[in-house]
Amino acid sequence: MALVVQKFGGTSVGSIDRIRNVAKRCLAAQKRGDDVVVIVSAMSGETNRLLGLAHQVAPVPNAREMDAIASTGEQVAAALTAMAIQAEGGRARSLLGHQVRIMTDNAFTKARIKAIDASKIFETLKNGEIAVVAGFQGVDENGNITTLGRGGSDTSAVAVAAAINASACEIYTDVDGVYTTDPNVCPTARKISRISYEEMLELASLGAKVLQIRSVEIAMKYQVPVHVRSSFSDAEGTWVVGEESALEDVVVAGVAYDKSEARVHFVGLEDKPGVVAELFGQIAQRNISVDMIIQNVTASSNQRADVTFTLAKTDLARAKPEIEEIARSLGTQTVRYDEDIAKVSIVGLGMRSHAGIAARMFRILADEGINIQAISTSEIKVSCLVAAKYTELAVRALHEGFDLAKVPGSNAPPAIAK
Amino acid sequence: MALVVQKFGGTSVGSIDRIRNVAKRCLAAQKRGDDVVVIVSAMSGETNRLLGLAHQVAPVPNAREMDAIASTGEQVAAALTAMAIQAEGGRARSLLGHQVRIMTDNAFTKARIKAIDASKIFETLKNGEIAVVAGFQGVDENGNITTLGRGGSDTSAVAVAAAINASACEIYTDVDGVYTTDPNVCPTARKISRISYEEMLELASLGAKVLQIRSVEIAMKYQVPVHVRSSFSDAEGTWVVGEESALEDVVVAGVAYDKSEARVHFVGLEDKPGVVAELFGQIAQRNISVDMIIQNVTASSNQRADVTFTLAKTDLARAKPEIEEIARSLGTQTVRYDEDIAKVSIVGLGMRSHAGIAARMFRILADEGINIQAISTSEIKVSCLVAAKYTELAVRALHEGFDLAKVPGSNAPPAIAK
Repeated sequence: MALVVQKFGGTSVGSIDRIRNVAKRCLAAQKRGDDVVVIVSAMSGETNRLLGLAHQVAPVPNAREMDAIASTGEQVAAALTAMAIQAEGGRARSLLGHQVRIMTDNAFTKARIKAIDASKIFETLKNGEIAVVAGFQGVDENGNITTLGRGGSDTSAVAVAAAINASACEIYTDVDGVYTTDPNVCPTARKISRISYEEMLELASLGAKVLQIRSVEIAMKYQVPVHVRSSFSDAEGTWVVGEESALEDVVVAGVAYDKSEARVHFVGLEDKPGVVAELFGQIAQRNISVDMIIQNVTASSNQRADVTFTLAKTDLARAKPEIEEIARSLGTQTVRYDEDIAKVSIVGLGMRSHAGIAARMFRILADEGINIQAISTSEIKVSCLVAAKYTELAVRALHEGFDLAKVPGSNAPPAIAK
Repeated sequence: MALVVQKFGGTSVGSIDRIRNVAKRCLAAQKRGDDVVVIVSAMSGETNRLLGLAHQVAPVPNAREMDAIASTGEQVAAALTAMAIQAEGGRARSLLGHQVRIMTDNAFTKARIKAIDASKIFETLKNGEIAVVAGFQGVDENGNITTLGRGGSDTSAVAVAAAINASACEIYTDVDGVYTTDPNVCPTARKISRISYEEMLELASLGAKVLQIRSVEIAMKYQVPVHVRSSFSDAEGTWVVGEESALEDVVVAGVAYDKSEARVHFVGLEDKPGVVAELFGQIAQRNISVDMIIQNVTASSNQRADVTFTLAKTDLARAKPEIEEIARSLGTQTVRYDEDIAKVSIVGLGMRSHAGIAARMFRILADEGINIQAISTSEIKVSCLVAAKYTELAVRALHEGFDLAKVPGSNAPPAIAK
């Protein structure tokens, strides 16, 4: 008898029929002898409807009231799911954030979970009931309702799984797992059977939108095995697990891409100590988030450096005047902007022990005639900035070049269990 | 500086524009120097939409889950109203049932308020904020969300007004007050300026749907002055106040009618001690609510009595087999049913001190050729059962016969202030 958490996203509870399917799946797990805790998102479309109402009332709605409104989507979905389980002859009880006591800070609309009281959930399970917990929501120490930001139900699910020490957290979604790359771009993309938290984190932050980043961080911290799978089939999905668990014997786990960023290029920045610190200090003060940062001494003139960084395209309009002001104050010669770029990345724990992976990536791109505008690396990731028009070509070439379509293990030492 | 409660029903918050009007009205009261607590219902149509969702999932949805769903309507309306006040430049904060701590029993879908903690409301007011309380909802001692039944927001408003000792509870609605009778039936119906709790209770229970009965009971118990008025104008409405406050100098305050009941007639019930007790005991055991009860010894046979009672038409289909069974067990000769009836009533505190009011009512009806099928009286009310087709005629005749169109006071002793 295991204790499992099952999380269903907005599409999985998007209609009455789908809610009935969710109920059947929970009951099936219970009949197998498991104690079941279900986390649900709002029915798809509902959160947008609620936010739309709020924005009709106020262009910039108060964040506390926003959360009071947005949290009703999950409240309704949780109660409907509990009812559906009862209609199938099962026993269930919906639990809201303030009823479980999912304690968060008071950063409304993007709160972070501080602690979860497991007692109400255990009490419910002890009654033989399935606990249906509303995702995405919590409560601060003053009893205000908070929400965890978009995709927050993943975080709710993993955090609850950690709090009750569940044997697994199943994330039911409309895709059947994590792929080596976007199957829409690369038809040979392959479903990964096991991936490490670290790799999943890099993939999530690089634009593979299967799991919210924060949920992977929590899973890693508390070593919660996460199973990403389809709510429309019984097939195994992708297990996100600790590095020490048996993993696929691959160097590169996946190829990610991200078209959401713009590039800013400071040309001829004075090359003396402290200038770059000053530049990014001012940017941070203005609350502009930057992603990649690349600096080079420029060849064209002495005592001048070029600095490139990327930021979200959606922030560019707001950030431009600030950036121009910073540029003037630092005596920069020119600032160039480019929105027509994409970041293409390879991710894999194997990079730590295999040399030459980055060089192989640059060679694969060069062989396709793709110019690399900037490079950034971490321990288990290499990212290249390329012209946006090359995105799909680059992804396909890297996927093939690193042999990701091939099921791993065939060449792997037999000792590595799957 | 006064402390006022303003309650807005579903029509008054039925659209974004109307919510903006509510915000303006609350702010106007605050600018006059009042501390303002607002109670809102769900936007009109929303509660039905939510109940519809629930009934799609389960034909008989679990009552606890029902309340978790239904309460979101008021939650959204309260947060939107707080946002609208903020958008107008004011300060406001929404408070849910569990945040105020409106404590109820656990009779889900029809819970009763047991206590209200006023501290959160006072804290909000002390911050200079308008407290926007979600109506219709409370919380039981285990933290479960409860609702108070249809029209429950009136009860929320009056109970909150009692808890914070407000100087008045204003009920904003889509009519501009309480009328001497239904203006749709009788064009000379007049808006009553002041009415006693007792009279309002009788009128409410007789089908004048302006205020929920339970809210009037609470107002009477805690002596909360209630002001029923239009949310679309600034005109004074109707004050519902204690008998000791100066009231209109009238004998009959209003004429009510109710077409929602059916008549059941037990013919030839054995006339011996205990039979009637047995009859209504069995009816109560089967959870059938009866309204009027009239018993007469019948002229047709010795040792036999006729008993008539009324019950809601909507209960009749369900109750019929039970009633037949009871009739058989008691040896009743015949049971007759009549759904084509109406109850017409006059209500007024003055009846206590004026003799002959009932006789005058019977005379007025007789003069119109209306046959009275049954009569029931209370201290301040006389009700007559008549054929449904006579309803409007009876109402108009009684309204004219008791001179209700005339503004009172003109003939009253000048000592009675209005």
